[in-house]
Amino acid sequence: MPKLVDHEQRRRELGEAVWRVIRRDGVEGATVRAVAAEAGWSPGALRHYFTTQSELLAFAMRLVVERVEKRVAAIEPAADRRAAVEDRLRELMPLDNERRAENEVWLAFTSRALIDPPLRALHGEVHDALHAACASALAALEVSDPAVCAIEAARLHALIDGLALHAALRPDLISPNRLLTILGAHLDALGGTESPRTPEGRPRRRRAQR
Amino acid sequence: MPKLVDHEQRRRELGEAVWRVIRRDGVEGATVRAVAAEAGWSPGALRHYFTTQSELLAFAMRLVVERVEKRVAAIEPAADRRAAVEDRLRELMPLDNERRAENEVWLAFTSRALIDPPLRALHGEVHDALHAACASALAALEVSDPAVCAIEAARLHALIDGLALHAALRPDLISPNRLLTILGAHLDALGGTESPRTPEGRPRRRRAQR
Repeated sequence: MPKLVDHEQRRRELGEAVWRVIRRDGVEGATVRAVAAEAGWSPGALRHYFTTQSELLAFAMRLVVERVEKRVAAIEPAADRRAAVEDRLRELMPLDNERRAENEVWLAFTSRALIDPPLRALHGEVHDALHAACASALAALEVSDPAVCAIEAARLHALIDGLALHAALRPDLISPNRLLTILGAHLDALGGTESPRTPEGRPRRRRAQR
Repeated sequence: MPKLVDHEQRRRELGEAVWRVIRRDGVEGATVRAVAAEAGWSPGALRHYFTTQSELLAFAMRLVVERVEKRVAAIEPAADRRAAVEDRLRELMPLDNERRAENEVWLAFTSRALIDPPLRALHGEVHDALHAACASALAALEVSDPAVCAIEAARLHALIDGLALHAALRPDLISPNRLLTILGAHLDALGGTESPRTPEGRPRRRRAQR
C-alpha cells in the first residue's frame, strides 16, 4: 500500500513542522500559513490535513495525544504501585518545556471546543481518555468500590485539569515542584499512607455519596 | 458628587443589559453592538465602559465577581463549620442557570486571558480572590498549619476550576448533583469526618511535603 505509507510519512513530517512552530511561536503563532512555510509545503498541500485554525488545533491535539501515549507506554513499571501511578500521571502535567507546549495545545484546544461544536467530539475523546487514565490510577491504588471509583476519578481528573490551567496562567505560583507536591498530597490522601484507618489499622472505606 | 452617582447608575444599567444578553445569547453573542442595542444606547455611549470584545469580557467578569460577592455576603451563617464552608463554595459552582452563565463568563474570560496579556491583571485578581476563598475555607475547617494550608488551598482551588471546566464541557457527565458529591467528598477528606486519625482517635496531622 505505497499510498498509505506515503500519507503516513507526510503526516509525520507535517506533525514535526507543527510541533516546531508551536515550540517556537506558541499556539497562537501556529497558523496554517506558518506551518506550511515551516514544512516547506505550499498551503494547498496541507489541505488533506487541515485548512482552518480549528482543524490545525485538532491536528496538533492528536499529536499531543500520540506523544503522551508513547511516553506512557515507554515507562519502566515501578515496583511500588504508588510510584507507578505517579510516573504515569506526571506525563500529563506541564513539568518541562515539552509538556508545557503540550499543555498550551490542550488548553487552546479546550478553549476552542467551548465555542466550536465541531471540535467537541475530539475533545470528548481526549476528555474520556484522561478520565480513563484517572480511573486506572485509582484501580492501581486499589480503590475498587465502583461508586467510590467514579467519584474519585472525576475528582482526580478535575484536579489535573485545574492544575494544568493554573500552571499555564500563574507559572509564578504553580511551579513544577508545586504541581508535584499537590499531586502527591492528593495521592497520599487517596492511596494508603494517609488514608483513613479503623482503630484496628484497616483502611476505612471512603464515602461515595453524601 | 452628582457625576459619580450618574456614572454608577449608568454602569448598573449597562451591567444589566450585558447580563440579559449573556443569559439569552451566551458569551459569544455578547458583542459590543448587541449590548448597545439591548441597553438602548448608541455604540459610542459605551466607550467609557468598553470598546472591544476583550474589554466587554472584562466588564462582564467584574459583574460576575460583584454577583458572587453579594450572594456570599447574604448567606446566613450555618451553625456547622462544614456546612458553612460548603454554602460559600456552592456559590462558586455552576449549579443553576445563573451560575452556569457566570461560569461561562469566567471560562471565556480565562481562555481570553491565556492569549491576551492586558486581561492578565484582572484575571490574576480574580484568581487570587478565589484562592483566598479556598484558604479561608480551610481555615474554617481548622487546617491551621501554614504549609499544609498553602498546598490544600491550591488543591481545592484547582479542583473547583477543573470542575467548572468539566461542567461546561461535559454537562452530560458532570451534573449539579455530581459537582456537589465531588465537592463533598473533597471536604470530607479535608475536614473531620473522614480525616486520618491516630489510634487514640486524635486527628493525624496531614502531610505538607512529600
